[in-house]
Amino acid sequence: MRINGKAWKSIWLDEDNDSIGIIDQTKLPHFLETRKLMSYKDVFNAIKNMLVRGAPLIGVSGAYGLALGVKEDASDSAIYEYFNVLNSARPTAVNLNWALTRVYEKIKKVDSKYRYELAINEAKAIEIEDVEMCSSIGEYGKSIIEKIEKEKKFSGNAKTINILTHCNAGWLATVDWGTALAPIYKAHRNGVDLHVWVDETRPRNQGASLTAFELQGENIPHTIIVDNAGGYLMQNNQVDLVIVGSDRTTSTGDVCNKIGTYLKALAAKDCGVPFYVTLPVSTIDWEINNGLKEIPIETRKAEEVSKITGINSCGDIETINIVPESSNCFNPSFDITPANLVTGLITEKGITSANHNSLRKLYKK
Amino acid sequence: MRINGKAWKSIWLDEDNDSIGIIDQTKLPHFLETRKLMSYKDVFNAIKNMLVRGAPLIGVSGAYGLALGVKEDASDSAIYEYFNVLNSARPTAVNLNWALTRVYEKIKKVDSKYRYELAINEAKAIEIEDVEMCSSIGEYGKSIIEKIEKEKKFSGNAKTINILTHCNAGWLATVDWGTALAPIYKAHRNGVDLHVWVDETRPRNQGASLTAFELQGENIPHTIIVDNAGGYLMQNNQVDLVIVGSDRTTSTGDVCNKIGTYLKALAAKDCGVPFYVTLPVSTIDWEINNGLKEIPIETRKAEEVSKITGINSCGDIETINIVPESSNCFNPSFDITPANLVTGLITEKGITSANHNSLRKLYKK
Repeated sequence: MRINGKAWKSIWLDEDNDSIGIIDQTKLPHFLETRKLMSYKDVFNAIKNMLVRGAPLIGVSGAYGLALGVKEDASDSAIYEYFNVLNSARPTAVNLNWALTRVYEKIKKVDSKYRYELAINEAKAIEIEDVEMCSSIGEYGKSIIEKIEKEKKFSGNAKTINILTHCNAGWLATVDWGTALAPIYKAHRNGVDLHVWVDETRPRNQGASLTAFELQGENIPHTIIVDNAGGYLMQNNQVDLVIVGSDRTTSTGDVCNKIGTYLKALAAKDCGVPFYVTLPVSTIDWEINNGLKEIPIETRKAEEVSKITGINSCGDIETINIVPESSNCFNPSFDITPANLVTGLITEKGITSANHNSLRKLYKK
Repeated sequence: MRINGKAWKSIWLDEDNDSIGIIDQTKLPHFLETRKLMSYKDVFNAIKNMLVRGAPLIGVSGAYGLALGVKEDASDSAIYEYFNVLNSARPTAVNLNWALTRVYEKIKKVDSKYRYELAINEAKAIEIEDVEMCSSIGEYGKSIIEKIEKEKKFSGNAKTINILTHCNAGWLATVDWGTALAPIYKAHRNGVDLHVWVDETRPRNQGASLTAFELQGENIPHTIIVDNAGGYLMQNNQVDLVIVGSDRTTSTGDVCNKIGTYLKALAAKDCGVPFYVTLPVSTIDWEINNGLKEIPIETRKAEEVSKITGINSCGDIETINIVPESSNCFNPSFDITPANLVTGLITEKGITSANHNSLRKLYKK
């Protein structure tokens, strides 16, 4: 996707095949700074300190990190150590373990002199597959937006399609395109007149910082709102559809996504607004049937609620405290949107209803 | 109510009858600073710059402001001017006009030498009536909390009553007690074991700053959460009831309150959590029957979304920018909670269902 008219990805292998480049996402949206990661240690730190974030991007970063490690020392003991170190950078990121395992399995039984090339190729493959997966989600999702556009035109209403999204499920969380934002990018490039309502998404504000930054780069009209405002907009016919991502999806179509998603799904149901969830098939957990009972919700540190980071009047990044000194804060990161509130699931394999049979059918494709 | 063990009100007439004292609410929760207002101009500035806020408190402040004006110059032309200047301090605050009119009507036909005493007495009367009204709301609301406490004890569950509130409808918005917080204060003083979930309430964060500050002063256990988290808590049986305020209520029981209230009401309905609204009968607008269609929603400035104020690492109050420089923000201030989502309305005259007949019956009491 573009920033200031130039094409970017969130991660890239440098031409020398010797290092990878990333955008330091902790500086967005205020500063666009890139970092050159030369070693597995650099990658470890970038993941740990959230210079890169978003499950798919963390996975790709980890895979490249392991390859950079192999370049330093391709011995059995070394690659085993690199695997474990990298895997510990974000303990809850299932995708990181998955990508590291994929590279590790590819090289572990091979003569050490071939390991670097194989590792870098596997990391590249993971990167390419991620782009293709997101692109496919985008194509399927685009068809929904275009259908809504046609219906709106037919009914004689104003033609701009207003889409509400929560958090950041964009190209900065993946390699390119994103998941929830991919349909929006594809539809916009295809000429659909659209406008995006961006939930700021407290506590980490990934909507106001990352989603808004992405949309700006693609010149997509958008407006940032507080998380409280979405219900008002839906009540007042200002939202034609909601598109969000999913971190984990049950076999019955319950969706676990960024805290606050459930509230928007309730409002969408109440106001008759279509509520779509985009997800790679890999996020479907076939072992569980009840999101509320079976998905444990991560509680993150209270400081994400009590403090907030932005840019001060001198143009410097600064963190301020916004609660009384001795008040407690509680910070659950995700909530469950039950399947009955979901209009449809958009995956790289197609669009399906949020229920067990439809999901099974899709998966067998 | 108390701060650090000492009893406070949000406004007071100084002993010399010559000036009024207020808490500078723009400095809360970080600094507790009082201001002495010596003239109607001081009061005008305090209202305009939101050192005092909350409809009831603005009304009482305006009334005292007019009295202070009368002390300077009690002539017909002067009191007419003071009325108009004060009335322009917050153009959308209906309560300000109501309180100013009450004082003005009391003095306008009276010889100018009696005007100051009459004006100050009328302002005092408005202050006292406000305290009584809030106290009465508190008593009725307390009975609901105590009923829920009994039911919870009976069912053998943990005995702490968890109450969720949105925004600040506490004593800082009135003179004492508050509206939504009054039942909580009364129940806590009566020995109910309770804990309050405080929505931070973006964009102005009156929950995280003012409600949390108030609860701290009364030693009421509380936890600040982002506005996104309430649905998760209700899904997980962490909320026994929701209590909020109302800025305007239709004759049919639709409630217009701080943006985001509607989302919490939807979650409460979905999760079977009682959702109560506290309100002075004066906020009922008997002329309107449909909140969504008939209540115009104020849109406030975008900077309330794009910027946020807190305390920096040096201990100074600082405002930072939290969105990309060229992104737009939209800031509607209120939303409508339809009557069908409201379990009950708690007024100074009693508790009623949110529908036309019940409200009429109550009003005739």
